[in-house]
Amino acid sequence: MSTVQDYIDKNIETFQGQLFELLRIPSVSTDSSRKSDVQKAAGFLSTQLKEIGLDKVTVHETPGHPIITAEKIVNENRPTVLIYGHYDVQPPDPEELWDTPPFEPTIKNGRVYARGASDDKGQSFTHIKSVESYLQTGTELPVNVKFILEGEEEIGSPNLVPFIKENKDLLSCDMVLISDTAMFGEDQPSITYGLRGLAYMEVHVQGPNRDLHSGVYGGAVNNPANVLADIISKLKDEDGVIQIDGFYDDVEPLTPEMREAYSKLPHDEEAYKKDLDLKEVFGEKGYSTLERASARPTLDVNGLWSGYQKEGAKTVLPAKASAKISMRLVPDQHPDKIAKLFEKQVLSLAPDSVTVNVEAHHGGHPVVIDLDYYGLKAAAQAFEDVYEKEALYSREGGSIPIVADFQKILGVNSILMGFGLTKDALHSPNESFSLKDFHRGIKTSARFLELLPEYS
Amino acid sequence: MSTVQDYIDKNIETFQGQLFELLRIPSVSTDSSRKSDVQKAAGFLSTQLKEIGLDKVTVHETPGHPIITAEKIVNENRPTVLIYGHYDVQPPDPEELWDTPPFEPTIKNGRVYARGASDDKGQSFTHIKSVESYLQTGTELPVNVKFILEGEEEIGSPNLVPFIKENKDLLSCDMVLISDTAMFGEDQPSITYGLRGLAYMEVHVQGPNRDLHSGVYGGAVNNPANVLADIISKLKDEDGVIQIDGFYDDVEPLTPEMREAYSKLPHDEEAYKKDLDLKEVFGEKGYSTLERASARPTLDVNGLWSGYQKEGAKTVLPAKASAKISMRLVPDQHPDKIAKLFEKQVLSLAPDSVTVNVEAHHGGHPVVIDLDYYGLKAAAQAFEDVYEKEALYSREGGSIPIVADFQKILGVNSILMGFGLTKDALHSPNESFSLKDFHRGIKTSARFLELLPEYS
Repeated sequence: MSTVQDYIDKNIETFQGQLFELLRIPSVSTDSSRKSDVQKAAGFLSTQLKEIGLDKVTVHETPGHPIITAEKIVNENRPTVLIYGHYDVQPPDPEELWDTPPFEPTIKNGRVYARGASDDKGQSFTHIKSVESYLQTGTELPVNVKFILEGEEEIGSPNLVPFIKENKDLLSCDMVLISDTAMFGEDQPSITYGLRGLAYMEVHVQGPNRDLHSGVYGGAVNNPANVLADIISKLKDEDGVIQIDGFYDDVEPLTPEMREAYSKLPHDEEAYKKDLDLKEVFGEKGYSTLERASARPTLDVNGLWSGYQKEGAKTVLPAKASAKISMRLVPDQHPDKIAKLFEKQVLSLAPDSVTVNVEAHHGGHPVVIDLDYYGLKAAAQAFEDVYEKEALYSREGGSIPIVADFQKILGVNSILMGFGLTKDALHSPNESFSLKDFHRGIKTSARFLELLPEYS
Repeated sequence: MSTVQDYIDKNIETFQGQLFELLRIPSVSTDSSRKSDVQKAAGFLSTQLKEIGLDKVTVHETPGHPIITAEKIVNENRPTVLIYGHYDVQPPDPEELWDTPPFEPTIKNGRVYARGASDDKGQSFTHIKSVESYLQTGTELPVNVKFILEGEEEIGSPNLVPFIKENKDLLSCDMVLISDTAMFGEDQPSITYGLRGLAYMEVHVQGPNRDLHSGVYGGAVNNPANVLADIISKLKDEDGVIQIDGFYDDVEPLTPEMREAYSKLPHDEEAYKKDLDLKEVFGEKGYSTLERASARPTLDVNGLWSGYQKEGAKTVLPAKASAKISMRLVPDQHPDKIAKLFEKQVLSLAPDSVTVNVEAHHGGHPVVIDLDYYGLKAAAQAFEDVYEKEALYSREGGSIPIVADFQKILGVNSILMGFGLTKDALHSPNESFSLKDFHRGIKTSARFLELLPEYS
């Protein structure tokens, strides 16, 4: 094994350089003007997969952005690991808050700053380099390896599920390996065994057919921005409890065992507040910060817009007001059911003086994996061997809808081997990724592939 | 009197030609590249004032655009009317939406299309021609007349108030006459006896120090956009009543006379709703649409912004949310006092989990003139004599800050003798002014000057 690990140590700077090349490609999947950049990122990765020696490297065109698959089958009797990652990134907005250009990777204090550094280019690249380290040193892979890399994760993976359904044989495996989550803390490896689901909605309130002079019409014509504020306000009460009829019906309550496990996870509330410059945290009454952030459902405004937003004063009564609102879900909430409940509630709150329209964006199912699963145990041991520290088991508040899809379509669990940190600032300006964790990530991946047969 | 009115009828085409000359000058006050055009318009008008026979015609330079004054004092014992107007115009943008060039006056269906046709070149020019009709026919002016014409109305008249303060003697008068408003309807003369004031505020809600991933932090960190919605929602109740402590303390209730005047105004609620594509109007309970739109104070969101506003979905918990919110005021509300009450209320609604900041933009005082005021009665009679229809008394929902300033500094009322129509498209593409109303406007002005001594 030292051959593989030595290769990683020796080539880490080359690996970094390759990652930076990938980070320079602004593969923003939600921005249609970036379509060719997303293609370019796909081209870069398929070339990588070929160069490291994988078989059947294929770029599958879809109605949206391409899906890349590749594989190396060494022995039909060994476990097969399907490695999933995404090469698309969130938009860099607001770009003016970046200290360095979002698509020019910059190293500072051992971290690389760039959009996608952690989510998910940096993290998913670890596995490509880990597999390379077997193939390029002539070391036999301990397991069969398959890759599936998509370019639409940040827009809800609209084409991935149909692809998986149509390519069950190509993708057949014993488990999925995903690095798209965070470790519990710095130098504190952890395995994520639970994820929240998502229902992402958009609400449009239309008042008059045109922007009006607020002096001439104000007071007599309902203001869609005021109405939107009313609607949003009524979706939660003062204790942070969501006020959508039926919203909590399918929520699995936290067991006393789960709550005890949560209470054992290290958490410094003062440091948490200080990091965010907050006087106080706020969330659903009766739950701790960690529980609120991962084991309880939420409702958050993600975007809000209406009327005049520039400098100075414009006395307009806006014709329209809109909001993007998403809900994080926990087992056994169903995103489609929640989307319908949301729409029903919002429409019930709409007065006759405006027209309200509710639109559903993508959704995702929540997931919790059994703590006794052998893949989880092998992953924990791999972390321990590389990080020289026991791995913890935690749940994440974010959503990786594909985890539920893999379970449903391929019937397999996903191992969430996160190398990120919460301070990576995913989806925010100045996203970054620790280069040390990039390095240890590659080594942990290689060690995991080595340990897996022993645990199966 | 028929000499004066005959002169007007005989010379109306000449007057139109002179107005068109003025309309051809693109005196856009906000556009610094148009500075010489604004000067040119001032020059054109001062020449006019001299040519018709006024005394002491002076172009006063200011740090911005010039102010023109002139006068004709006939008898110290007669009332003095100060005629106010502005010769600057709004920018023509978006120019591509004009059917004919904005600075090439074009006649279509009895209307002249040009930027400034109604606001305020066409309307204010009526009074110059009315005074000319006395002076050029050798008819003694029934009252003393003064003019003040400014070139900065469309940019908030920054130099006018200081000028008035420094020139109280020059401008001393018994009343101000302004034509810069609309009649209640086509062929329906009306006197505007009230204007609302304004307090324009901006609210900023700061949550965490950076945009966060709504999966990782959602539920545990308060969302500033949700908080902003809560705050806005709490500023009005379900009956449209504003919930700011002390907000209504100084509001003068509508008198039975005022409500009667309102009830006389023609108003077709179905046509009003159809024009705006609204199923229902909405406003403060217990008041009619016309009362709500002009005699009652309001609170409207003018702008709203937070988080991700573009296409698709971004799962961000925004760091900040902001709103522009303005309140229209009625006598005796004071804009500064209301601004303070607003700030206090908003801050009291802010939870500890966010930081809320309130900023005041400009304000303006509301004005209502006593319905028994002799100037109003003379104006109504003048309208009736020329239009052969009873003039109605109405209030406008918008603000003309200078009216309150004249009251405060010179201690006089303003007669708002509007000859425009709401369909004139002020500040919009294809601004126009009825040539028939230009003609009747000159005659009404002349008749008003004639009637005034009888009513005083």
